[in-house]
Amino acid sequence: MSAQPVLIAGRWRASQASGTFRADNPTTKEPLPDEYPISTWQDCDEALTAAVDAAQTLRRAPSETIAAFLEAYAARIEARKDELVAMAHAESGLPKAPRLSEVEFPRTTGQLRQAAAAAREGSWALPTIDTKNNIRSVLEPIGPVCVFGPNNFPFAFNSAAGGDFVAAIAAGNPVIAKANSSHPGTTRLFAEEAEAAARQVGLPAATVQLIYRTGHADGERLVSDPRVGATGYTGSRNAGLKLKTAAEAAGKPIYLELSSVNPVVVLPGALEERLEEVTGEFVGSCLMGAGQFCTNPGFVVLQKGGKTDAFIKLVADKFRAAPVGTLLSKAVEKTLTESVATLVRAGAEVLAGGKPGGGQGFSFGNTLLLASGEHFLQNHAALQTEAFGNSTLFVVADDLEQLCRVVDQVEGSLTGCVYSHRGGADDAAYERVAFHLRPLVGRLLNDKMPTGVAVSPAMNHGGPYPSTGHPGFTAVGIPASLRRFGALHSYDAVRPARLPPLLLDKNPTGKTWRLIDLEWTQRNV
Amino acid sequence: MSAQPVLIAGRWRASQASGTFRADNPTTKEPLPDEYPISTWQDCDEALTAAVDAAQTLRRAPSETIAAFLEAYAARIEARKDELVAMAHAESGLPKAPRLSEVEFPRTTGQLRQAAAAAREGSWALPTIDTKNNIRSVLEPIGPVCVFGPNNFPFAFNSAAGGDFVAAIAAGNPVIAKANSSHPGTTRLFAEEAEAAARQVGLPAATVQLIYRTGHADGERLVSDPRVGATGYTGSRNAGLKLKTAAEAAGKPIYLELSSVNPVVVLPGALEERLEEVTGEFVGSCLMGAGQFCTNPGFVVLQKGGKTDAFIKLVADKFRAAPVGTLLSKAVEKTLTESVATLVRAGAEVLAGGKPGGGQGFSFGNTLLLASGEHFLQNHAALQTEAFGNSTLFVVADDLEQLCRVVDQVEGSLTGCVYSHRGGADDAAYERVAFHLRPLVGRLLNDKMPTGVAVSPAMNHGGPYPSTGHPGFTAVGIPASLRRFGALHSYDAVRPARLPPLLLDKNPTGKTWRLIDLEWTQRNV
Repeated sequence: MSAQPVLIAGRWRASQASGTFRADNPTTKEPLPDEYPISTWQDCDEALTAAVDAAQTLRRAPSETIAAFLEAYAARIEARKDELVAMAHAESGLPKAPRLSEVEFPRTTGQLRQAAAAAREGSWALPTIDTKNNIRSVLEPIGPVCVFGPNNFPFAFNSAAGGDFVAAIAAGNPVIAKANSSHPGTTRLFAEEAEAAARQVGLPAATVQLIYRTGHADGERLVSDPRVGATGYTGSRNAGLKLKTAAEAAGKPIYLELSSVNPVVVLPGALEERLEEVTGEFVGSCLMGAGQFCTNPGFVVLQKGGKTDAFIKLVADKFRAAPVGTLLSKAVEKTLTESVATLVRAGAEVLAGGKPGGGQGFSFGNTLLLASGEHFLQNHAALQTEAFGNSTLFVVADDLEQLCRVVDQVEGSLTGCVYSHRGGADDAAYERVAFHLRPLVGRLLNDKMPTGVAVSPAMNHGGPYPSTGHPGFTAVGIPASLRRFGALHSYDAVRPARLPPLLLDKNPTGKTWRLIDLEWTQRNV
Repeated sequence: MSAQPVLIAGRWRASQASGTFRADNPTTKEPLPDEYPISTWQDCDEALTAAVDAAQTLRRAPSETIAAFLEAYAARIEARKDELVAMAHAESGLPKAPRLSEVEFPRTTGQLRQAAAAAREGSWALPTIDTKNNIRSVLEPIGPVCVFGPNNFPFAFNSAAGGDFVAAIAAGNPVIAKANSSHPGTTRLFAEEAEAAARQVGLPAATVQLIYRTGHADGERLVSDPRVGATGYTGSRNAGLKLKTAAEAAGKPIYLELSSVNPVVVLPGALEERLEEVTGEFVGSCLMGAGQFCTNPGFVVLQKGGKTDAFIKLVADKFRAAPVGTLLSKAVEKTLTESVATLVRAGAEVLAGGKPGGGQGFSFGNTLLLASGEHFLQNHAALQTEAFGNSTLFVVADDLEQLCRVVDQVEGSLTGCVYSHRGGADDAAYERVAFHLRPLVGRLLNDKMPTGVAVSPAMNHGGPYPSTGHPGFTAVGIPASLRRFGALHSYDAVRPARLPPLLLDKNPTGKTWRLIDLEWTQRNV
């Protein structure tokens, strides 16, 4: 059987491949039938050249056309929803319902449509007009964007349909999608519709291109190529940091979403007040989707005494009683096994799970680990090994003072949660803990688990290194996520007819928000 | 004579120094009397520890106090203006008037006051509220900022008073200033007043700290230290890229302003229409301050025929006739000599100047170099060697087609200018040229030279690599320059009383612009 074609320069054609691979069905552990190519540099090179051409056309395209593309694409994938859900289920083991068809799919089409609205309206680009000096500025397309999607969201973060993709396109850039190797078929179906949608609205066919896999060296060469504008990457820390080094050495922006332990601090009053409720929320968040979320609560900090022991026992019981989910791939099972072993070697005690198996297909027992605050402080690097999946580490501090010192050692994370007494019994403790936690996390939550990542203008799905590569950007949320893929362009004394539409005296939509002489307004100059 | 003290943790104390240095008076080429220390790591380490403490206090400080600091500082340096002007003149050779006292000094106090207004008002931080999801986000302080200032603006880009300094402080961060070695005395005077202003308004004394110089390895260690939030650097490409590599390997944001050739395209109609005027503007911009500006027009692209030869001859004549300015330091004279030699070796013809000397003190003849478009296309890397100072390269293309190919090879620059016929005779050519030039430069100008960099909300003093390290940020312009020193923080379901002032339901100033449910408004929620 021959390998699936790649999509380059608007043509589905045989890859210049160095080999092939197949994805596994994680539920059966059997390889799926389709073979996919491992591209050589020649595929990347041709994609880059075509992307440069497409970028030139996109720069001249009306924002209405880009919006129309995103909307047409959303409608087209809705027409193939059943096929996409079936393929993603086969490739990821995630349940068809509710997860794939009722949660992740509508989120994906919703993101496409929100991005379309943002592209059409233009406020995302922070158009700024200084009438006194006659200088105007706006974010404009940064150039071809490479997108490396993660394994855990075959739809919503898919490299050819998900968050980074829509942000890059809505900002006016073509995308070279590198499929995640665990769901190449899902990505192929998306790319088919993306290409068709581009033709439908009259955008260049190379607006979206698809390759499935490259060698490591070619991946590093790709993100650092002079023709690239920027890269969006979500995935493992090791691979991400190699791409980061390569891209940054070439002066190319790269936005990474790497590992994150996502600390949850549960203060004594919260347990005193609502032990069962907190337990339920925590167990639900930690085991949902077999814990395979970037924001999975993998690190819980507690204070000795009160109902802490009862909480730990309840969670351990529920972990043992809960069904064991299917992991996304053999690689996830292997890495989780190794990570838990690392944590145990570093002194964590196993209260539940700790071993592979127990579920359908690739799986690992629901795992609860325990360490003391003192022990954590002595081994904080090893005890923050990310165990991606249905595993969490509880750290019990002697007192609030030690708890804050534990928090101080937490690595930069996407999220940080604090649960506290509703009546105010923990308020003084909250103030101290939040002050320590706030600078270490991108999103701070109260009495809420971190696994829901709303597509909100105020979302930050980002955080300090090593959770991402820069604390100023978010990968989720429109309009903010678009700004990663814009270059700041000033127009100084440029003649009026030569200005881009967003900077004309007349508001191009009548509704675009522009900063005119330090006032945000929808009016004309 | 003992070395001047450093300012660390609010104390002027002897440096733990590995040696000392003295700055030269560039006009006399004689060393100035004061000796300054080369700090060892111990100074850096103590400054970092004190900066972390100061950052914690600043995080809690009302924005009013930060604004009051910036304003008190502006008033204090105004009281020492004569002394500052005299010191900067001695250290830089720049004229006391108009340059230092009438242009750069008021620009510096103006920046301090604009930053104060921005800090007080808060809109710079893009406060964003999503009432439906109850998620709110805002940029908050990124942590201690290291500022490395350049040699060419002893006031306006001074590491203890200039653009990066005010942006970092207004965003709520303490600054560790590394003085430029060519004006340590000016920086010392500033730091004295900064420290006094901090005490005056009740900010931590370590809000501003000062060291004068470190070894290269300690500089790299400083910008990559876990205690640092970010770094702002303006200076040479070599030193900047070493700091960039070190900072990025540690996941630390670093904003760099490096070299830039600043292409100027003069279309035939502009010369046909106003030869003398364009010549005058160009010569003025290129020789002002001996050409020592980041945005000096160092690269001019012309089209063969018409009045091009006449323009070249006029410029050459004026370059020969104009007085030769004083360069900032021996190092500038040496680098300019080497750069011009590199350009000549790469095939550029010397039409004027080309040799050191000819002015008072450190100097180099006003230099005009010439190359053909064809020759440039064959040697574009070497022919873009930045010659910082009073030197420029003219490239004459055979036709518009070749001119566009020349533009395509221009390295990422801060600015790009196009001069064209006022009556529209060049309009078709403009459209083509601007399309090629636009993505390569941060600021595009029409019929205007690039050396004026207004402190405007719409300014972009930034651009694609290698002019900076990221095309999305500007080093000049308020509020945009502040955003480099903010970390994006989301608050998800955080209880109302625990929100920062900018995210409360009630608009904290009544005037702050906030993005509430995708609408920019000054109202309360």
